[in-house]
Amino acid sequence: MTDKRPIGFIDSGVGGLTVVKEALKQLPNENILYVGDTARCPYGPRPAEQVIAYTWEMTNYLVEKGIKMLVIACNTATAVALEEIKATLSIPVIGVILPGTRAAVKQTKNQRVGVIGTLGTVKSAAYETALLDKAPDLKVTSLACPKFVSVVESKEYRSSVAKKIVAQTLAPLELRGIDTLILGCTHYPLLRPIIQNVMGDKVTLIDSGAETIGEVSMLLDYFEISNSPKNGRTLCRFYTTGSAKMFHEIAQDWLGLKELIVESIDLGGKVQ
Amino acid sequence: MTDKRPIGFIDSGVGGLTVVKEALKQLPNENILYVGDTARCPYGPRPAEQVIAYTWEMTNYLVEKGIKMLVIACNTATAVALEEIKATLSIPVIGVILPGTRAAVKQTKNQRVGVIGTLGTVKSAAYETALLDKAPDLKVTSLACPKFVSVVESKEYRSSVAKKIVAQTLAPLELRGIDTLILGCTHYPLLRPIIQNVMGDKVTLIDSGAETIGEVSMLLDYFEISNSPKNGRTLCRFYTTGSAKMFHEIAQDWLGLKELIVESIDLGGKVQ
Repeated sequence: MTDKRPIGFIDSGVGGLTVVKEALKQLPNENILYVGDTARCPYGPRPAEQVIAYTWEMTNYLVEKGIKMLVIACNTATAVALEEIKATLSIPVIGVILPGTRAAVKQTKNQRVGVIGTLGTVKSAAYETALLDKAPDLKVTSLACPKFVSVVESKEYRSSVAKKIVAQTLAPLELRGIDTLILGCTHYPLLRPIIQNVMGDKVTLIDSGAETIGEVSMLLDYFEISNSPKNGRTLCRFYTTGSAKMFHEIAQDWLGLKELIVESIDLGGKVQ
Repeated sequence: MTDKRPIGFIDSGVGGLTVVKEALKQLPNENILYVGDTARCPYGPRPAEQVIAYTWEMTNYLVEKGIKMLVIACNTATAVALEEIKATLSIPVIGVILPGTRAAVKQTKNQRVGVIGTLGTVKSAAYETALLDKAPDLKVTSLACPKFVSVVESKEYRSSVAKKIVAQTLAPLELRGIDTLILGCTHYPLLRPIIQNVMGDKVTLIDSGAETIGEVSMLLDYFEISNSPKNGRTLCRFYTTGSAKMFHEIAQDWLGLKELIVESIDLGGKVQ
């Protein structure tokens, strides 16, 4: 059984590339299509209905290109749109929240877990609900970090400005005694070294994206839709609603790929 | 979303208890039903058609009891019957071969993997096919260990006789240079300390059953059929086609459970 069709990844911008990076490593034979809605990023502060509409536009774009599985590589979109999209499409659909949750429950020793994410993700309480659903005794501290996405999208994620913003934003977590922190936004792994530095070595960071790819691998087997090593990866293409040049730069930097095909697209929705 | 229905486990005898042991640990809220076809064990030397027929009898017994998921906790049955049963039932069905395969591919450093199993599993080449399908460069050595199941079923798995049988049987693996060995039969984890001792510390043993429960946990989330911690586990019941007393002894010993409900059943099939 071998299925060459690509796996689709969607995100509000470049954040989902941290999930693709794991896919490039863990799924060497799978073809990949990616849509980053950079023109309308960030999704975090937008109302749920709008995020759902935008997520559907990206989804439909990739479904028409014949993907075999959809990964919603964006926490904000997963929080508000996963259920509806999963119930509607006939292909498997995976979000990033449950895999991160499962990993955190497994990891924590003192039952104190932190979650950082966009305003939209934190407001949805999706992580909190999923965590407490699995382990009702957990103490969960959620914190919105509205500035992080802009820092990453502007390619400033290694600057001293980034360090200052991260330290200031995470300060409220200091006294909560958490031993596990979920990076509840796929942009955040780009800030990982800085976040780890601020939180200290005793706090384990959970990268939801990396956990998600483990689940993708399993579901490819379960649904018997893996691509064979004989075919191998022949397609890896990125679409952005924003500047292809800017997307190309950040993707190349982050993924460490020499050659990269980035195409600018119009999803038809009005940028608001 | 919460689903109290039990997960069904089936095996040719007591071997699948090693999978249940992982379920008791990793899935503390899930209800469990188990059928061990002890009267017709071992399945290993039986023709495929017979194993398929017996596996269906166990499956139907549990489906009538309203299970929400079926785990074929027996490598021989997985090798020959998983595909048909998965394609027929409307509930998720999981075998033990793919999870073990995935773990071995991830684990091996020198690309030399060993597989030990029953005659039926080795003859089916199910592991070999699955391993090479994922990693065509692997060197796979398969070895049938026909005596191991009887040793375990007879509760002799800690005796000096067991040690001698294991050492003699595994001798052909010595010169193959494997760094990873798949315990391709759910009975074998009961012999794990002896097998590890014979193989030496440099060989990593893969317990397919333990890997399988990781997959079960993921699929419970994916299909949204987990039981909630609020309900918790209220049901854990074992059925055997053989002696309830003997099954009870070995299950208690292996699972470390004080109270254990074991019921003797007749699957209606003729014992041959």
